[in-house]
Amino acid sequence: MKVAILGFGTVGVGVYEMLEKCAGLEPGPVLVRPGKADKPFKVTSIEAIVDDPSVGAVAEVMGGIEPANTYVAMALKAGKHVVTSNKALVAAHGIELCELARINGVSFLFSAACGGGVPFLHNLAIAAQSDKILSLGGILNGTTNFMLDAMQSEGKDYADVLKQAQALGYAEADPTADVSGLDALRKIMLACAVAYDKLPVDGFSREGIESITAADVADFQARGLTCRLITSGGPAGDSVYAYVEPVLFPASSPECAVVKNFNMAKYNGENAGAIVLMGQGAGRYPTASAVVRDLCGLGSLEMFRPACVEVRADNSNCVHSYYVRVNADKADRFSFAESKAAGNAVRGVTVPMAVPVMHAIAEDIRNEGGSIFFAAMEG
Amino acid sequence: MKVAILGFGTVGVGVYEMLEKCAGLEPGPVLVRPGKADKPFKVTSIEAIVDDPSVGAVAEVMGGIEPANTYVAMALKAGKHVVTSNKALVAAHGIELCELARINGVSFLFSAACGGGVPFLHNLAIAAQSDKILSLGGILNGTTNFMLDAMQSEGKDYADVLKQAQALGYAEADPTADVSGLDALRKIMLACAVAYDKLPVDGFSREGIESITAADVADFQARGLTCRLITSGGPAGDSVYAYVEPVLFPASSPECAVVKNFNMAKYNGENAGAIVLMGQGAGRYPTASAVVRDLCGLGSLEMFRPACVEVRADNSNCVHSYYVRVNADKADRFSFAESKAAGNAVRGVTVPMAVPVMHAIAEDIRNEGGSIFFAAMEG
Repeated sequence: MKVAILGFGTVGVGVYEMLEKCAGLEPGPVLVRPGKADKPFKVTSIEAIVDDPSVGAVAEVMGGIEPANTYVAMALKAGKHVVTSNKALVAAHGIELCELARINGVSFLFSAACGGGVPFLHNLAIAAQSDKILSLGGILNGTTNFMLDAMQSEGKDYADVLKQAQALGYAEADPTADVSGLDALRKIMLACAVAYDKLPVDGFSREGIESITAADVADFQARGLTCRLITSGGPAGDSVYAYVEPVLFPASSPECAVVKNFNMAKYNGENAGAIVLMGQGAGRYPTASAVVRDLCGLGSLEMFRPACVEVRADNSNCVHSYYVRVNADKADRFSFAESKAAGNAVRGVTVPMAVPVMHAIAEDIRNEGGSIFFAAMEG
Repeated sequence: MKVAILGFGTVGVGVYEMLEKCAGLEPGPVLVRPGKADKPFKVTSIEAIVDDPSVGAVAEVMGGIEPANTYVAMALKAGKHVVTSNKALVAAHGIELCELARINGVSFLFSAACGGGVPFLHNLAIAAQSDKILSLGGILNGTTNFMLDAMQSEGKDYADVLKQAQALGYAEADPTADVSGLDALRKIMLACAVAYDKLPVDGFSREGIESITAADVADFQARGLTCRLITSGGPAGDSVYAYVEPVLFPASSPECAVVKNFNMAKYNGENAGAIVLMGQGAGRYPTASAVVRDLCGLGSLEMFRPACVEVRADNSNCVHSYYVRVNADKADRFSFAESKAAGNAVRGVTVPMAVPVMHAIAEDIRNEGGSIFFAAMEG
């Protein structure tokens, strides 16, 4: 089957190269920007792809919501399977694009949109057919894991590890989507829709890693703890919970063994028990490998099933104790189980509190000009 | 689709219960031993299943090679899909049963035979379609992992943890297949056939955990190392390598985070990079969940492809340094990079040596009445 590719950046080139070597698949036309068609296989109009009867499937790896959404819809309507790595697109338009695929009798798959090379959504979709998924999530952003790991193993400060991540190509020039937790949040949105037929679109709690300092790292390392940015999802009555926040783990936790830019995705099945998948969450070939895996498996698997609807996330019953570093004059916002003065700040561990309450207090403190770092205590 | 079950032991009961709740599937007749058909759905003759046109698939969870092989072949010839958890059966007859499935236009799948609830073979089969698998393996036996973990975390001796594993139902009355590494070896045989179209049937190196003592544990723990029973496979010229042996890991390795009876399966794809899957490798519901996952995914996936042939494993180019504890009068069989006397024994770490050489020297020493424990040094 001939596979057209939309976009010829990092992932697109990887998909092209893999298709050249994959039995049963071959690369077709590649959509590039006007003026960039410097090879015969490159085209600059989407019509050259959707009107080409020899193209059986389209790999969308251009990123962004538009024109990707329009192009993917055109391809599905033209009866072509579509595979994408574009998490923003699926988070925004996944339900309608899956419906369009069903109507046209083709597949719309997006394993590469969550976990890069880690085959998470694919396995989750299969597991959800026969098992009850009790919870899901994990370390779903490689950029922030690289930064946290570097801060903790090398004692560097946030600004230094961000520069290092940018120099290595792990973080973009504008790193906001990664460091704010937005990228990880989009991934848990997709995972919830796959596992629960519920795509959460608001009601989230989201804390990234922008507030962490070398002094924070030194303090919780002295407590024997390691920080990871964790994405959590699960059922919550008629809705789902879905949130992103830093979490502190004791040294024996498998999360501590996830180093550099690796990802670790988890689901807990009522029958299967805890299933953990680790691998490279980004990069040319890992992401391309997920795209090509989906292309090899075009069949009956549906990632968003017909029952999938949008919901508002409900995190109100999710409760953790939190490690908090906050200005001394704001410390009375918390009930600490233990705390100590640290210069102009207080560091401590709170009594158990609901996730949205913790996130709201932090937002209030920041709105008042205060400074705070917080991380849930695992367990 | 109605699914018949061969065997109603630990896994069979789990499969039956899961099928009752799984959309699109329902439990059919269950084959039990003569005199055990105490419910209407239980039957005692295989003909009652293969001649029943309402049965679309058969789950073989009776174990053992015969009569399982005969029954599975009968079911495939009758045009029924077959899913099995029986690693001994697939290791012995997998190639011919897969061929029989192809001839009859049905599927023969066996995810549950390797890794229990961990979806290893399924993901490996998909990855092998589009990626080059550079190596594979991991912790594929939960019984021995439980025993090693208990020895290391509780300081107990081998005989005590074996009793504990038997009391908990993790080890059988005759634990030989687990503790000798045979169970893990059968799993790597299947994984090599899935990844490389080559089923190794001899030429193995296999060392279990029967020689480890509390004193060994104390010594390598003092070196900061943790022992796991590791199964390794990969390409070796026209053949594959495939061996099982204890391996010592530094504390930062993800293998050390695999505790209790958990499994950790790995493959390293040229494009995907290292992909790690962890979960429960045995038990009623984890294993049943793998059987039911395969039943949900009956389609075009082939685990052993038509090109699959039997080969003799070739471990001659696999080289490690080894930690060795051996009688002092046998120590001259090794070139130690470092060693020390320990009572009547010598403990040390060898210079790098080939896997088959290490295993052959250990066999010689045991044949001479000597005692030896060895484990590869990771890295």
